[in-house]
Amino acid sequence: MNQPIDEFSLISDYFKELTGQQNVAVGIGDDAAIIDIKADKQIAVATDTLVASVHFPKDASAEHIATRALCVNLSDMAAMGATPKWFTLALTIPKQLACSEWLQGFSQGLARIAGEYNVSLIGGDTTAGPLSISITVLGEIPTGRGLCRKGAKPDDIIYVSGTLGDGAAALHQIQHQDLAQNTRLTERFYKPKPQIELGVGLVNYASACIDISDGLVADLSHLCKASSVSASINSQSLPIHADIKQAYSKQVSQWALTGGDDYQLCFTVPSIRQEQFERWACSAKFVVTTIGKIAALDHNQNYLKIDNQTSSITAGGYSHFR
Amino acid sequence: MNQPIDEFSLISDYFKELTGQQNVAVGIGDDAAIIDIKADKQIAVATDTLVASVHFPKDASAEHIATRALCVNLSDMAAMGATPKWFTLALTIPKQLACSEWLQGFSQGLARIAGEYNVSLIGGDTTAGPLSISITVLGEIPTGRGLCRKGAKPDDIIYVSGTLGDGAAALHQIQHQDLAQNTRLTERFYKPKPQIELGVGLVNYASACIDISDGLVADLSHLCKASSVSASINSQSLPIHADIKQAYSKQVSQWALTGGDDYQLCFTVPSIRQEQFERWACSAKFVVTTIGKIAALDHNQNYLKIDNQTSSITAGGYSHFR
Repeated sequence: MNQPIDEFSLISDYFKELTGQQNVAVGIGDDAAIIDIKADKQIAVATDTLVASVHFPKDASAEHIATRALCVNLSDMAAMGATPKWFTLALTIPKQLACSEWLQGFSQGLARIAGEYNVSLIGGDTTAGPLSISITVLGEIPTGRGLCRKGAKPDDIIYVSGTLGDGAAALHQIQHQDLAQNTRLTERFYKPKPQIELGVGLVNYASACIDISDGLVADLSHLCKASSVSASINSQSLPIHADIKQAYSKQVSQWALTGGDDYQLCFTVPSIRQEQFERWACSAKFVVTTIGKIAALDHNQNYLKIDNQTSSITAGGYSHFR
Repeated sequence: MNQPIDEFSLISDYFKELTGQQNVAVGIGDDAAIIDIKADKQIAVATDTLVASVHFPKDASAEHIATRALCVNLSDMAAMGATPKWFTLALTIPKQLACSEWLQGFSQGLARIAGEYNVSLIGGDTTAGPLSISITVLGEIPTGRGLCRKGAKPDDIIYVSGTLGDGAAALHQIQHQDLAQNTRLTERFYKPKPQIELGVGLVNYASACIDISDGLVADLSHLCKASSVSASINSQSLPIHADIKQAYSKQVSQWALTGGDDYQLCFTVPSIRQEQFERWACSAKFVVTTIGKIAALDHNQNYLKIDNQTSSITAGGYSHFR
């Protein structure tokens, strides 16, 4: 029989400082946390798991793992237009990592992101086992205003935020142990920026929204399927950062389409609101790019056309390090 | 590179029927779920992870694993006096289990408990990796009425629900591959009964409450530490089921004190409310047993006395199958 990891003291030793007091009636250290909810709000809830060697290299630093895990989860809140407020952490760690140094690094990484995005850790469970991190984020949305995948209509304009392909380029560099080359890409991989402020603003303009975690082709197809529409995009219009356009000229188009791990938002805006939206986005300094248009779904249920061709590109899905 | 498990289709194929519609504005299939909250309620949130070979034998059936995972999580709601309403599932499965048979069994087990306790699955994430299940349960509590570990006062009466030691006896039988002997114990291990109705009623009587997952000694000590009091219990008064008293006469007292995995409630009731509480418990047919009394904390900070002796028994903690 193995000696158990003492969950009770681990959580209070390393993570208790992360529990803020924003509407938290009971925080870490009880059987459950209790949170106060305002009457005119709904709660958004999302869960994501990151497994070592699947979602991050198993030799990544504890701080990197923690920042990536929380950022990726916060991105789901951005996609709903929710303001993230609280999160729970289920941390499974092998015994050799249950040392104070690793846990301190992990806790610091988590604290940094929690502070930046003003979210409080409200509960946790630490277990001995193969390294994996499951985070559940809770956020607030003004009642009835949440952004869904469903809701895109023919003639809506399709936008993406930021640049695409950076996640795949970073992964390529990690796999070729070449990350020192480009600190922007290291940051994009280990600290992908959840587009919270953009998402919160989009509730006033967008008809549908999704975050790009599996790649634009896969995620835009999900949005179209949920909305029962099709999308037509122009591959030349995809926003790609100059440094990867230059360094990876052969791969970069494919990465932007199917690479995944970008954590940008892909969303649709009714054409009648386009001008008003773009004025707002510009004044708020959000980088957004028009990449195509929504159309009615044809009889063959093709959700996506790229440069007027039915997409035959398969979705990239998750990246595996094994 | 491994082929990814398609999380999107797994969740919709196997788990979509589990999402009820109780106050769920947006259910499975979006970046996050959205739930409606009533104005006079607070939300209780708890997360627990079960890892194969640590919290259940790795050859346990998919249905057994699912029922145990959800029951154990619901027990945290019971301990808070919360009514569980929603849950998210983070399921990490090795590729060889990502077959329809295993997933169907898992989904059926989950559906059975979700139906019994009227909780809806609102989100999920399925990942390839070593088998583990993280569940986050959300429940409602009338504002300000949640039961905490903190709150016990000197002279409060200490109670436990049901019988103790069954979890350890079941574990013993599993480890000796002897579970066929006693179907009551098999059920206690794979379908521990979360004491939801008792917890919901206790908000009217109890000063503090905890669920017994790590063993009475460990969990009552947690309650005392949170309340800054000590507990004095009488080992002869611990409720033990006749069948394990007979079959395991040597081990049974130790199991009742430190065995863990019982998922009963341990709670304190001010003596002034004792009579009223016991009348209610009796009329509602809850089996509860007085096991001792709360006292002021002494200078040595001993949280627990058993039969008037300072407890030197170490907490059993988690059970490991490795």
